[in-house]
Amino acid sequence: MSNAGEGTIGVGMVGHAFMGKVHTHAWRSVHHFFDVPLAPRLAVLGGRDLDRTKAAAAKLGWDAVETDWRALIARDDVQIVDICTPGDSHKDIAIAALAAGKHVLCEKPLANSVAEAEEMAAAAAAAAANGQRSMVAFNYRRVPALAVARQMIADGRLGKIRHVRSQYLQDWLSDPNTPMAWRLRKEQAGSGALGDIGAHIIDATQFLLGEHLTGVSALMETFVHKRPLDGDPKGKLDDVTVDDAALFIGRFASGALATYEATRFALGRKNSMRLEINGEHGSLAFDFESMNELSFYDGTGDEQSAGFRRILITEPTHPYVGAWWPPGHIIGYEHTFTHEVYDFLTDIHNGTDPVPGFADGLQVQRVLAAVESSATTGSGWVAVSS
Amino acid sequence: MSNAGEGTIGVGMVGHAFMGKVHTHAWRSVHHFFDVPLAPRLAVLGGRDLDRTKAAAAKLGWDAVETDWRALIARDDVQIVDICTPGDSHKDIAIAALAAGKHVLCEKPLANSVAEAEEMAAAAAAAAANGQRSMVAFNYRRVPALAVARQMIADGRLGKIRHVRSQYLQDWLSDPNTPMAWRLRKEQAGSGALGDIGAHIIDATQFLLGEHLTGVSALMETFVHKRPLDGDPKGKLDDVTVDDAALFIGRFASGALATYEATRFALGRKNSMRLEINGEHGSLAFDFESMNELSFYDGTGDEQSAGFRRILITEPTHPYVGAWWPPGHIIGYEHTFTHEVYDFLTDIHNGTDPVPGFADGLQVQRVLAAVESSATTGSGWVAVSS
Amino acid sequence: MSNAGEGTIGVGMVGHAFMGKVHTHAWRSVHHFFDVPLAPRLAVLGGRDLDRTKAAAAKLGWDAVETDWRALIARDDVQIVDICTPGDSHKDIAIAALAAGKHVLCEKPLANSVAEAEEMAAAAAAAAANGQRSMVAFNYRRVPALAVARQMIADGRLGKIRHVRSQYLQDWLSDPNTPMAWRLRKEQAGSGALGDIGAHIIDATQFLLGEHLTGVSALMETFVHKRPLDGDPKGKLDDVTVDDAALFIGRFASGALATYEATRFALGRKNSMRLEINGEHGSLAFDFESMNELSFYDGTGDEQSAGFRRILITEPTHPYVGAWWPPGHIIGYEHTFTHEVYDFLTDIHNGTDPVPGFADGLQVQRVLAAVESSATTGSGWVAVSS
Amino acid sequence: MSNAGEGTIGVGMVGHAFMGKVHTHAWRSVHHFFDVPLAPRLAVLGGRDLDRTKAAAAKLGWDAVETDWRALIARDDVQIVDICTPGDSHKDIAIAALAAGKHVLCEKPLANSVAEAEEMAAAAAAAAANGQRSMVAFNYRRVPALAVARQMIADGRLGKIRHVRSQYLQDWLSDPNTPMAWRLRKEQAGSGALGDIGAHIIDATQFLLGEHLTGVSALMETFVHKRPLDGDPKGKLDDVTVDDAALFIGRFASGALATYEATRFALGRKNSMRLEINGEHGSLAFDFESMNELSFYDGTGDEQSAGFRRILITEPTHPYVGAWWPPGHIIGYEHTFTHEVYDFLTDIHNGTDPVPGFADGLQVQRVLAAVESSATTGSGWVAVSS
Repeated sequence: MSNAGEGTIGVGMVGHAFMGKVHTHAWRSVHHFFDVPLAPRLAVLGGRDLDRTKAAAAKLGWDAVETDWRALIARDDVQIVDICTPGDSHKDIAIAALAAGKHVLCEKPLANSVAEAEEMAAAAAAAAANGQRSMVAFNYRRVPALAVARQMIADGRLGKIRHVRSQYLQDWLSDPNTPMAWRLRKEQAGSGALGDIGAHIIDATQFLLGEHLTGVSALMETFVHKRPLDGDPKGKLDDVTVDDAALFIGRFASGALATYEATRFALGRKNSMRLEINGEHGSLAFDFESMNELSFYDGTGDEQSAGFRRILITEPTHPYVGAWWPPGHIIGYEHTFTHEVYDFLTDIHNGTDPVPGFADGLQVQRVLAAVESSATTGSGWVAVSS
Repeated sequence: MSNAGEGTIGVGMVGHAFMGKVHTHAWRSVHHFFDVPLAPRLAVLGGRDLDRTKAAAAKLGWDAVETDWRALIARDDVQIVDICTPGDSHKDIAIAALAAGKHVLCEKPLANSVAEAEEMAAAAAAAAANGQRSMVAFNYRRVPALAVARQMIADGRLGKIRHVRSQYLQDWLSDPNTPMAWRLRKEQAGSGALGDIGAHIIDATQFLLGEHLTGVSALMETFVHKRPLDGDPKGKLDDVTVDDAALFIGRFASGALATYEATRFALGRKNSMRLEINGEHGSLAFDFESMNELSFYDGTGDEQSAGFRRILITEPTHPYVGAWWPPGHIIGYEHTFTHEVYDFLTDIHNGTDPVPGFADGLQVQRVLAAVESSATTGSGWVAVSS
Repeated sequence: MSNAGEGTIGVGMVGHAFMGKVHTHAWRSVHHFFDVPLAPRLAVLGGRDLDRTKAAAAKLGWDAVETDWRALIARDDVQIVDICTPGDSHKDIAIAALAAGKHVLCEKPLANSVAEAEEMAAAAAAAAANGQRSMVAFNYRRVPALAVARQMIADGRLGKIRHVRSQYLQDWLSDPNTPMAWRLRKEQAGSGALGDIGAHIIDATQFLLGEHLTGVSALMETFVHKRPLDGDPKGKLDDVTVDDAALFIGRFASGALATYEATRFALGRKNSMRLEINGEHGSLAFDFESMNELSFYDGTGDEQSAGFRRILITEPTHPYVGAWWPPGHIIGYEHTFTHEVYDFLTDIHNGTDPVPGFADGLQVQRVLAAVESSATTGSGWVAVSS
Repeated sequence: MSNAGEGTIGVGMVGHAFMGKVHTHAWRSVHHFFDVPLAPRLAVLGGRDLDRTKAAAAKLGWDAVETDWRALIARDDVQIVDICTPGDSHKDIAIAALAAGKHVLCEKPLANSVAEAEEMAAAAAAAAANGQRSMVAFNYRRVPALAVARQMIADGRLGKIRHVRSQYLQDWLSDPNTPMAWRLRKEQAGSGALGDIGAHIIDATQFLLGEHLTGVSALMETFVHKRPLDGDPKGKLDDVTVDDAALFIGRFASGALATYEATRFALGRKNSMRLEINGEHGSLAFDFESMNELSFYDGTGDEQSAGFRRILITEPTHPYVGAWWPPGHIIGYEHTFTHEVYDFLTDIHNGTDPVPGFADGLQVQRVLAAVESSATTGSGWVAVSS
């Protein structure tokens, strides 16, 4: 009656902060809700500090620990390497894991630069020929509401798309006394709001439209340049070296116009990853704070009773939802990851390429680079390289 | 690094349908998020059919199975008996489990009649003297938003309460071809919408106000009297012997007026467990379809900027929420159960009485009986017995 | 270029408080937006106090004043008598106006008792034979959103109706120091929340369903029994002799179940006249605080994209709306009255009976009486007389 | 009892389409609700076609007509000239009216070019020395909710502003068969979505912040280049020579970041003039489709009960609202103009300068020009001239 042993696959996860906690819950839960060919084993947890990693492993339920990610990768009981570390280590871990013959799931953004992402994408492509699978953890693609939205757009229910407007609004840095964190250091995080949350809405909107941004004009800003290391405003201050906010306008390959905004200074908006898409025949709207809802306007029906409808995405016929609860019983943030690892495990078993793969992660990195380039050179138009 | 063995407590769960699935997730997850003194072991799953129970145990992750609930209760590796069966078996299982020295968590409504509930409450009271804990699974008390609401009312932020209006609206029976189910048979379910979902809003509102209903006038109705056994409208039909909808007006001990409605025929409302409470100083509103939000009107501030505010109940300072994700990252339905078993395990360890206990379940049963009595005798006023 | 003289019809309005102000705006505006056969002339304003009535006439734009409503009725330049006084004078004014050969528009509720309403309905029926028109000012029927709702129900888009839930929530009496007013005296107002706002939701829901309530069980309550005459809590107090809140459950002729609540103690709800109707094929929801919106759930389409849609009732094809502004430019409360007098003037010209007529007002009065009877005799079931 | 003659002021209005209709309602109603020192007389309506202008005057209630606006300006019974024509005639009419000693109210945008606007602003400044008043009809400043918002920001309740995001979304051009109109011809309208609706959100946000935009990067697009002259898709087509959509990012003088979007292709959004402002201490949100509501987040209170509150802007203490109805009884679009002419009449009487004056209109024109310049030269940064 156990899921261990035969029919299982060993996971080694590097990093045990916020992302590590939520990934763990996904690995632990997925096979109890979805039919997966291989049940994940929580084999090894990686972390730099032995005591803290041991404590995390005990709490989260991992069988073993390693303090050196190279050792973790080398273990025979690890077939999947799950990278939940800051962006500056993604490239080294991912390339080493691929070289060691492992499948790789990597947190987003894929890397801290286009150059790194290019190396990673090349390594993933080479490994794919060897049957290894790589995936970037743009988990918002696995929000059921956005999976429904993608299907509706692909089915033509919106017709030709004219407008995309998307914002990722948080407020946790709005208070200047919020303490320093690794996400505020360029050398670790690569960028600030742009890479952390802007990357999500870039990926999500490109996913929804099934096409890419071709160019952007951008503004970036750091509102608070120094922050207390430990939250004591009279204590030692450290330099914030990334953007607090990034906003840009852009154009999709098909000609659709787009506006984007990523900020952690939108007081009162806690995790408002929002988007609205207007097409010739219909429109969609979404806000992650109400992630089980999709708003849809059908412009093809009679005008008298047309209106944005709030679709509660909890029907068994909605993607992923059949595994969960009856209609109207909503699911939470963490299950976007459960869906992600479900799809990843399925791809591994089927020998199919996960989406988004590293090449997709690289393309998002190119958009991030174009935004930064525009913002640092007077907000002029910068084409997204391809 | 395992949570098994020392420091664990064995759970035996009877029933593996919808409630069994969600309870399992709670038992499996609770100690990975909350600090519990005793980590639950998924020891034994009980079900009548051996093959189906074995399959469920494998899927859900239980160590063993029993097809006779008496055998399950008798096992040494079971310290907690979790009752997830239809209401007609609650009394026998609970009383036997208590007699065997086990702690008991019982799904709601506590029983199918006041008489049964009285027996159960008496047994629980006797067992409590012996250090055994009993709890009724009115999980909505553990929705963080409602825990916040309770605290606000207890703190006097609403002042004297004048109005309660509450509805539990579903629509899964609206289609007359929805097939027959045990919930539609009086001998198994006790009642229909009244006991299944009406019980939730009775308990939740009494919990929020911290006082009881004293009397009611009620209407009950069965809209569809026969349903296909297997969903084929031309196939064999069976009799629906419970109410499809129940609605009543009532009065709380303090004089507050209340309206209630429970129905599975509110087309378009999937799981809209709603309530609104108006006090002398403030008001609250809630809808379970947006369970991470609480709406609050503060009548004590300046009138010019007063308005119902949508509080996103995802701050670390909100009850239970610190265990989960950062602000704005919502949780789902299932974690109301995770919170429930967290509190239950804590009570077991601390030797404190769980709330709601069987006496609370009995009191709700008395309200249900008063509603039924009013509805079947011309909708006149019926006092709730005490 | 003037609308005076030929092609006009003289209006004499009794009362110049809130209702008088809003009726005046309707009489003044209607022919500038709608094609009416007879443009209203603001001929005479009636009020008891000469100076205050003169001041009101100057402000509101009436040509003349009378301090005796009998004199107003007797004038040759008055063809329509518009009754905007408290309920205790409705009967005498209306019957006298009808006896004098005038058309009558009367504010709601029609009267302070069933007996008065019966006299008025009889007088109106007799006068109708003489070509005189009578109408009760249940203005919510002329909210475009509710006119759309009525049409949808009449067209069968909701199918058989199972549930009606309606509330009229205000909070202006929530503060116990809100001063005494005529609406709180039984001899003037007939009843409190019940007749003032409860009458509106009774009429509106019966209008929407096209059928009548057959019986009710009710609770009524006065929360604050004495109020300061002038708002000074230390000043002279006066007795509140009407209900502060009324709530009841009921049943429609077709079997639909209904819940109602009318209160002025719902803190934070300013003028929330709400309703929700669930049918076999669709559902509707409405809140007057957003009076230009109608929420509709279509249960006949595909389940995957079904959801309550917010229809903005500002399309030129919506009833009354073509007279106003482009889509998305909302109208206000006062134009429910503009629509009302438009329909009334049209009926006068066409020789057709206005709806709701005095017989409809009488029927609502009978529901009010049944509610009061139930509430004062232990909340038992009371059939609505017919 | 009449408002004519002494104590009145004569209005001559040029144009009788949509804007003429709504301005007329304001002139006709203002003194019946507000205390104005001078009641407007609807003296003369100007239009090019005699028959159509006569018909409009009869319907709308104007005393006389003129087919030559120069004749209208010259009349002694005209003290205020109200310009409701397309933008290409604003300059000539306004300057002539000012030269003739009249007060001038001019629809927005002030002109079709910066050069024209400069001439107009100079003429207005010169006339102001002579006691003549000029105002641009940016009516959204008179939405009570936005007047409250301005007050809150001026009072410091939001603290330093970091973000502005604003959209004006309509959909009436989304259908390619929507017929040609003067608003789609550059020579008449100056620009498309940019000047028609983009001007509103530029003015509104600058008004709210009390400061100006300093530069922008922009995109503009025409989605549909030819439209049927009469709505028959097989009939004669005409060239659309303006933008269908304009979007830009910008920066305020204080450093606040801003995003803007104006489009008539946002299918399902009928008149969604939206904005959201995030400050260090609070945030505001507004959508004109719900124009009686203001959403406010107070970041200075306790975090546990913080949330965006929906303030219903219908309290007597809210700006302009005391003139209307009791709380919860909303007003419509047209009364933004009633408020506008109320303020204008008050300024005329008091000898104070109306806001926004022609200098404000000129400044908005400079922003429009910067947007156009950026969009037509590769979306680079263009400073707003001053």
